[in-house]
Amino acid sequence: MTKVGIFGAAGYGGIEFIRLLLEHPEVEIVYLGGHTTAGKKITDLYPNLLGRIDMTIGESSVGALVNSGAEVLCSALPHKVGADIVAEALDNRLKVIDFSADFRLKDAAEYEKYYQPHPRPELLAEAVYGLPELHREEIISARLVAVPGCYPTGAILALAPAVKAGLIEPRGIIIDSKSGVSGAGRSKVMLAFHFPELNESMKAYSVAVHRHTPEMNQELSLLSNEPVEVTFTPHLIPVTRGILTTAYGRLRQPMTETEAREVYQQFYANEPFVQVMPAGAQPTTKQVNGSNNCHIGLVVAEDTGWLIATSAIDNLIKGLSGSGLQCLNLMSGYTETTALDRPALWP
Amino acid sequence: MTKVGIFGAAGYGGIEFIRLLLEHPEVEIVYLGGHTTAGKKITDLYPNLLGRIDMTIGESSVGALVNSGAEVLCSALPHKVGADIVAEALDNRLKVIDFSADFRLKDAAEYEKYYQPHPRPELLAEAVYGLPELHREEIISARLVAVPGCYPTGAILALAPAVKAGLIEPRGIIIDSKSGVSGAGRSKVMLAFHFPELNESMKAYSVAVHRHTPEMNQELSLLSNEPVEVTFTPHLIPVTRGILTTAYGRLRQPMTETEAREVYQQFYANEPFVQVMPAGAQPTTKQVNGSNNCHIGLVVAEDTGWLIATSAIDNLIKGLSGSGLQCLNLMSGYTETTALDRPALWP
Amino acid sequence: MTKVGIFGAAGYGGIEFIRLLLEHPEVEIVYLGGHTTAGKKITDLYPNLLGRIDMTIGESSVGALVNSGAEVLCSALPHKVGADIVAEALDNRLKVIDFSADFRLKDAAEYEKYYQPHPRPELLAEAVYGLPELHREEIISARLVAVPGCYPTGAILALAPAVKAGLIEPRGIIIDSKSGVSGAGRSKVMLAFHFPELNESMKAYSVAVHRHTPEMNQELSLLSNEPVEVTFTPHLIPVTRGILTTAYGRLRQPMTETEAREVYQQFYANEPFVQVMPAGAQPTTKQVNGSNNCHIGLVVAEDTGWLIATSAIDNLIKGLSGSGLQCLNLMSGYTETTALDRPALWP
Amino acid sequence: MTKVGIFGAAGYGGIEFIRLLLEHPEVEIVYLGGHTTAGKKITDLYPNLLGRIDMTIGESSVGALVNSGAEVLCSALPHKVGADIVAEALDNRLKVIDFSADFRLKDAAEYEKYYQPHPRPELLAEAVYGLPELHREEIISARLVAVPGCYPTGAILALAPAVKAGLIEPRGIIIDSKSGVSGAGRSKVMLAFHFPELNESMKAYSVAVHRHTPEMNQELSLLSNEPVEVTFTPHLIPVTRGILTTAYGRLRQPMTETEAREVYQQFYANEPFVQVMPAGAQPTTKQVNGSNNCHIGLVVAEDTGWLIATSAIDNLIKGLSGSGLQCLNLMSGYTETTALDRPALWP
Repeated sequence: MTKVGIFGAAGYGGIEFIRLLLEHPEVEIVYLGGHTTAGKKITDLYPNLLGRIDMTIGESSVGALVNSGAEVLCSALPHKVGADIVAEALDNRLKVIDFSADFRLKDAAEYEKYYQPHPRPELLAEAVYGLPELHREEIISARLVAVPGCYPTGAILALAPAVKAGLIEPRGIIIDSKSGVSGAGRSKVMLAFHFPELNESMKAYSVAVHRHTPEMNQELSLLSNEPVEVTFTPHLIPVTRGILTTAYGRLRQPMTETEAREVYQQFYANEPFVQVMPAGAQPTTKQVNGSNNCHIGLVVAEDTGWLIATSAIDNLIKGLSGSGLQCLNLMSGYTETTALDRPALWP
Repeated sequence: MTKVGIFGAAGYGGIEFIRLLLEHPEVEIVYLGGHTTAGKKITDLYPNLLGRIDMTIGESSVGALVNSGAEVLCSALPHKVGADIVAEALDNRLKVIDFSADFRLKDAAEYEKYYQPHPRPELLAEAVYGLPELHREEIISARLVAVPGCYPTGAILALAPAVKAGLIEPRGIIIDSKSGVSGAGRSKVMLAFHFPELNESMKAYSVAVHRHTPEMNQELSLLSNEPVEVTFTPHLIPVTRGILTTAYGRLRQPMTETEAREVYQQFYANEPFVQVMPAGAQPTTKQVNGSNNCHIGLVVAEDTGWLIATSAIDNLIKGLSGSGLQCLNLMSGYTETTALDRPALWP
Repeated sequence: MTKVGIFGAAGYGGIEFIRLLLEHPEVEIVYLGGHTTAGKKITDLYPNLLGRIDMTIGESSVGALVNSGAEVLCSALPHKVGADIVAEALDNRLKVIDFSADFRLKDAAEYEKYYQPHPRPELLAEAVYGLPELHREEIISARLVAVPGCYPTGAILALAPAVKAGLIEPRGIIIDSKSGVSGAGRSKVMLAFHFPELNESMKAYSVAVHRHTPEMNQELSLLSNEPVEVTFTPHLIPVTRGILTTAYGRLRQPMTETEAREVYQQFYANEPFVQVMPAGAQPTTKQVNGSNNCHIGLVVAEDTGWLIATSAIDNLIKGLSGSGLQCLNLMSGYTETTALDRPALWP
Repeated sequence: MTKVGIFGAAGYGGIEFIRLLLEHPEVEIVYLGGHTTAGKKITDLYPNLLGRIDMTIGESSVGALVNSGAEVLCSALPHKVGADIVAEALDNRLKVIDFSADFRLKDAAEYEKYYQPHPRPELLAEAVYGLPELHREEIISARLVAVPGCYPTGAILALAPAVKAGLIEPRGIIIDSKSGVSGAGRSKVMLAFHFPELNESMKAYSVAVHRHTPEMNQELSLLSNEPVEVTFTPHLIPVTRGILTTAYGRLRQPMTETEAREVYQQFYANEPFVQVMPAGAQPTTKQVNGSNNCHIGLVVAEDTGWLIATSAIDNLIKGLSGSGLQCLNLMSGYTETTALDRPALWP
């Protein structure tokens, strides 16, 4: 049995993590921390949990957390806000799974370019990028895991086999992602996400300048023997959950779709949460929503020389809390799929 | 361990039942039967199940079912189509949980009015109306359970405490329900449910003549000491899941909302899946979607003398497969909430 | 040619009014007034107007309005905020069309019950309730018109023929309305309207206590020879536009649906924007969205004695700006349908 | 006054064309032709037109058309079905605006690759590609105009200035489009477009093999001095209307976004329906839905060397019927913007 405390419990990432943990036979939630929500019952904020959990949110204080007996801190606090808290928790011998962007990048200068000066650069070397499909062994023995961003999870899983096998040019990769609105979080109640403004609409945003780009470059470069450079455009789509990523890489030399699919299937042969769709099939986000799955479609455009890989994930599960729970399972010695193997709802 | 076969497995009711059973530690799915879908792999029809189940759909034949070792038949075949099959399964000593309308009404004449001459009227007396909140004891010992319609589940649960306690007039009750589109099923691919026709639209249909009306009258009358008569208007709303029911009953004598709420809270005090919302709160369908919960809101309009009860359910779970699984658990001696206590996803 | 100024121009009501006026051959927009938006170009706030209008929003000041040469003020300011401004504009010999709740109720005490002490009760007697189907002659000669609320428009048009002809009991009327989210306006950027919270959800709100109730009672009572008393429940539905109202009245004496439909058809025989659907047909909100139309469905439940009338309107057009423009046309001597006779988009 | 007949009147393209023509002061609709819908009143199929048009659909027969006095045939019949009819209408001295794919491609072999052997290849040389922004002069004097596909309209307008000015490499262009569901038409009532299957989901389809690809290559090559080769991936998004296209071209030599925007603004300086968004702004589909506008966003990713152009159109208006009406206006000598200058609805 592992005792877990959650900071930032009242955001979409936190609440989804709570929901998943309620199914976990080996994990006990011992503390919920918030900020503006401190003092409220979690069910007052999330009536879907009525009758399933009866806890009041406290401050996001490491002292309180330690007193609760927590062995692991899962921090869904916003980037920068949580970095000192993470360090303090580590000092108190807790393991930490951090959902923010703070510990994903190895290069503090790169972090500073997209965010601000890094508050705790000394922890970057130790932090493990929490994508089990790429870093399983490191996660098992990690003290500090940084859960990947939602976009990088979809993009990296779509491209990893091709990059690793050197099928595509490392430069000139296009990543075009379409995201549901829950990725914006619950606290960002802005006009852009006001139902009448967004429903029946679509738009691109942060074109070629999105903060998740360096994560993609970092992780894909680790798989390649050359620096990988992607151009990333996210789009806002009027659905609640789901990211569909369409990734385009130029083939280094002509190959058939069958050959490329074989590379993908081997890469993911033993992965419990990644499925390569059969030839001719493309994944829908519906088929993964509510699950920790990532479904991948693959097309080789032989006439123009592009490999086109698509991936579908639930941005709040495989793109956030589910990957976090995969890490928690690995770090705690549980079966990696515990409380995560439920399929998506349909319809 | 209970071995279960499912006929009509490839409809929305069937597939949701499968999804729930995949979480059930004591139930094994041993047979899937279809009709037009026979011969297909279930994952070809429902890619959300990729990697979670690997079964091929057979014919909806009781012989094949018996050979599979099934002890319980869950039939999600359309009404009338399945009645003879249900009878044959009973003859083969299987227990049956039927999701169709065939065995819900006690009065064959009433059935004929809304459907057609009843194919197996001799089974009506024995069949139990599968709403555990009203018929738990009978379900435990039943051979044949008829799972309620989705609208009646929401309407009956909204009104049962008021009717039972005699708070409202048994005649003149208005039930105004708003349903998501999945209630139409997967096989009814019609213009009315074509995305561009339905999205951003709403409509009433079957006004005051819907087939689910007699179920409501039957069950509410059983709770009353007088015949109950409702007027029921369903509406189609552009969401996938969820039924919100707004029920209006005239108070027999003036009472406060606090008094009425007390009646409701006592009625549902021990029910694991029904929650009465606190004063001032109204349930959303989102807070129950993906769960087996029914959340109830209550208002007393003291100036005009109406009691207004609202209920929110997921039409495919509490309104169909979840209630079916509650019944299966009861009939099999398992804890009633097994594989059903997961809260709704949010958002 | 009529010169019009619009206060509250940057809300959904204001912008829809602008959009309609851009089609009007006899109206010139000479002034746009806002509050927090003063100083901004209207196209910066509403890029859909790019290339169609090039105006900057000023203060909502009557002095500036008079200087612009405006003959009519259309005020879409929030209730109470605009009452003094309306009075000042009248003092300056402008005609006023007010979209707020300030001048809809004849009884200042009733207004105070739902809003606050009325700032200008002396104007209530003169103000005309701007529903042309009921008050056309008064509107033609009015100085001050109060455009009805969106819910009352749908509810009153659904019930007016039945109430006027005495078909139904004046008490015990149930009005169950389902509204799109744009009714909440653009400035109310709240969690309840945050896309992920509202999409795929439905809920009742302000059950039996909504502010629009007294408008319904007032106008229906004027049509009856007895006080009419409705119980009104609005619901929030995840669509942008549209109100579907389902109204239930108890028949005073048995009648057929054909007889009732005849009453409705005669009542609306000469109305350009109201259509009674043929027997068996129910209106969808899609078929009126983007238009000034109100489509009405009618059912008589002979067995239970209820008349059930449904109405579909676009809440921002027939429920707000379109009715306002009908009034402007009438007050200015133009054909009532000018710039209003475009049908709804489909799909 | 021009007399127009419409074949395929009951599809989404036909009905939108009718709706637009109802606003046109110089066009009279004299005939509606259908196929399976012949004999029905148009308002029975489209209740949004109740009270606005009272016509019955006839056969799609040129004889009947000629008898009606039509001078122009607008054919929204499916590809191939209409080719002989188009030829027959031309033989009868009618002008023809064809909404199908039959006369868009100049190369019959290319047509055959994506469709079937061309039924009337002798007309291809004469047919004009009906995109006024590229072929205005030819359209004015054309007998036969082929309205572009919806995807090509968005893609070509997004890329035309860059291709024409030689800013980007003619090969290796990526076009990633996101479309609403109305593009599938009304007659394709399939499971893929069944509301519960599609709502809250997204998917790629026809990846790199879509039929609209050769149109893009043909028209962009005409603008370039080298053959242009695009790789096109369409996506299905759960909205009714709207296509958002994100187009990626590799810059031939480094340039700033300001320089590129200047090229775009000059290219579209005199176009009434194309707007280049200011720096930092991206178009939403909502801001063009219901209008004939195309709004274009532009980003230059200086570090990776890509020009990224986005375009938003209403697939049924600028992507189909609106472009058709632009052509009709040009062919008939009317102001090009007649009945087309209404802005999009908001919200």
